[in-house]
Amino acid sequence: MVPVLHGGRLAAARRLFPAAPSPFIDLSTGINPHPYPLAPFSVAALTRLPEPESEEALRHLAASAYGAPSSDHVVAAPGSQILISLLPILLACRHVAILSPTYGEHAAAWRLAGVTVVPVPDAAALLEAAGAGVALVLCNPNNPDGRRIDADTLAMLAARCAEQGGTLVVDEAFADLEPDVPLAGSLLPSAGLLVLRSFGKCHGLAGLRLGFMLADLGLAGRMRTLLGPWAVSGPAIEAGLQALADDRWRSRISHILDLASHRLDRLLTGAGLVPVGGTRLFRLAETPDAAALFERLGTAGLLVRRFDNQPHRLRFGLPADEQAWERLRTALG
Amino acid sequence: MVPVLHGGRLAAARRLFPAAPSPFIDLSTGINPHPYPLAPFSVAALTRLPEPESEEALRHLAASAYGAPSSDHVVAAPGSQILISLLPILLACRHVAILSPTYGEHAAAWRLAGVTVVPVPDAAALLEAAGAGVALVLCNPNNPDGRRIDADTLAMLAARCAEQGGTLVVDEAFADLEPDVPLAGSLLPSAGLLVLRSFGKCHGLAGLRLGFMLADLGLAGRMRTLLGPWAVSGPAIEAGLQALADDRWRSRISHILDLASHRLDRLLTGAGLVPVGGTRLFRLAETPDAAALFERLGTAGLLVRRFDNQPHRLRFGLPADEQAWERLRTALG
Repeated sequence: MVPVLHGGRLAAARRLFPAAPSPFIDLSTGINPHPYPLAPFSVAALTRLPEPESEEALRHLAASAYGAPSSDHVVAAPGSQILISLLPILLACRHVAILSPTYGEHAAAWRLAGVTVVPVPDAAALLEAAGAGVALVLCNPNNPDGRRIDADTLAMLAARCAEQGGTLVVDEAFADLEPDVPLAGSLLPSAGLLVLRSFGKCHGLAGLRLGFMLADLGLAGRMRTLLGPWAVSGPAIEAGLQALADDRWRSRISHILDLASHRLDRLLTGAGLVPVGGTRLFRLAETPDAAALFERLGTAGLLVRRFDNQPHRLRFGLPADEQAWERLRTALG
Repeated sequence: MVPVLHGGRLAAARRLFPAAPSPFIDLSTGINPHPYPLAPFSVAALTRLPEPESEEALRHLAASAYGAPSSDHVVAAPGSQILISLLPILLACRHVAILSPTYGEHAAAWRLAGVTVVPVPDAAALLEAAGAGVALVLCNPNNPDGRRIDADTLAMLAARCAEQGGTLVVDEAFADLEPDVPLAGSLLPSAGLLVLRSFGKCHGLAGLRLGFMLADLGLAGRMRTLLGPWAVSGPAIEAGLQALADDRWRSRISHILDLASHRLDRLLTGAGLVPVGGTRLFRLAETPDAAALFERLGTAGLLVRRFDNQPHRLRFGLPADEQAWERLRTALG
């Protein structure tokens, strides 16, 4: 199997563009460049096994932040990726339909488990694919194009899966800062509904590894069993307890990133690219010269995200500061 | 299923002994009370997704520290517990024999997966249980009694499993500081051999969540697939890269803990308990009054580890400082 191409690989970028100026600027991910202002970790967070009471408090907070009925419907994990990797074990489906193109690890995880993966182009085709032993997978908003699934469609998909004994997987990794994305967690306890949430992207703390699954009690309990006790680190629990309770920060950062993503659109448009979608954490743009532009930006020390299966598109994360904005502006020419 | 009783639950201890003096002293785990002196984490460790090159460097270092032939034989995980929880998925055995009594999560993980668990009392019985589709599980040194399996016995068990198409699981969670424990990793690449290592116990950094599996290439690759990319956090990678390269610290701490564990033996013996084994990170002691002593210590603000299935035994971790030694001495009376 060909490994999934990912953003964020600065060491590889430096090898690819050895003459590029330093620092190399990473615009290849959708991670908030303004990290949550964490208090220093306690010594106990590093030295002691996390207490079950702290993990339960974190799940309680996550349930409330993400719209799940209770902490029992929540699984805390060391990042949402490990949940994606374990979905084929958890769900034991014979068949999965994925709203595509989208985040590549979904298809990869199922294929590695030997499950037939059918990419589908829209929600109607997803609905049609529903059935017993079938998982439907969608990202809302979608990565990399930002496509939204509305509340009615989501409810219809969940109801169809519940009726037919299938599973609906809604990956809300980029939903935190989007005012117009309906929370699938609020449809719980709908049987066979499973929602994935990322902590690190919105909070700019991807290295900490924290993610959540919201699901009906049976699925949530089985995933907790797969992970075992203490899957989430002490630092991740402390960060989650601070940041998920901080609505003020989230509302402020959401506004800041809204402005920044529009600024990015204008910059890209000015350089002759066509913005075709995105979220407040990244923008997707089209240009017939995407391959050449990727090279030109790389030579100038800027890493953006290209796509094997979408050769005319590049995804741009948000510059962290004025120097990065200026280098992007200059490199786009 | 009854959840496994664990040490380290200070919040629960405070509820059990609300009138105990503060601070409550936790002697219920086998975690080094003198944590490795970490350099501060880099900002990138928290904010960026870990780069595959860093994770590979960590696996390389772990291979050399734990005696595995190469980094490809190593899986890095967010703690060794998640590896234990995933063993039933990885190995798909019909039957497992566990050298018992031992760390309770081994039997619990297999039972939760519906696999028949047979506790066996010694290495001879373990050898006899070997067969196709059978996993043999042993902890070396054993928790809580410190029992060792010697190099010859280990080699014989590994050879038998390789011959018969079974798996030998050697949990070396407490091996780091023991000079007389043979490294099972040095038997790799033996087919069907799988070794678990803990980083947090020896380095006093259990909250960071870092553990390793060493195995033949097939098992190691499949476990990496189950975990997916970025299972280990940036802080855990940075800590591992520092500490696993620091032989001087490990040799110094090993000496310090050797002295401390003998001091603990003398203290326990002086109080009428009979030390029956252990490691440099904990001691197991017998006393007919174990239940009463657990209560007395708890009332005095000291949490030790009791065992449902061994009611005459208590396990003692090492006090962190002179104040803790003094409180233990006084409470043992």
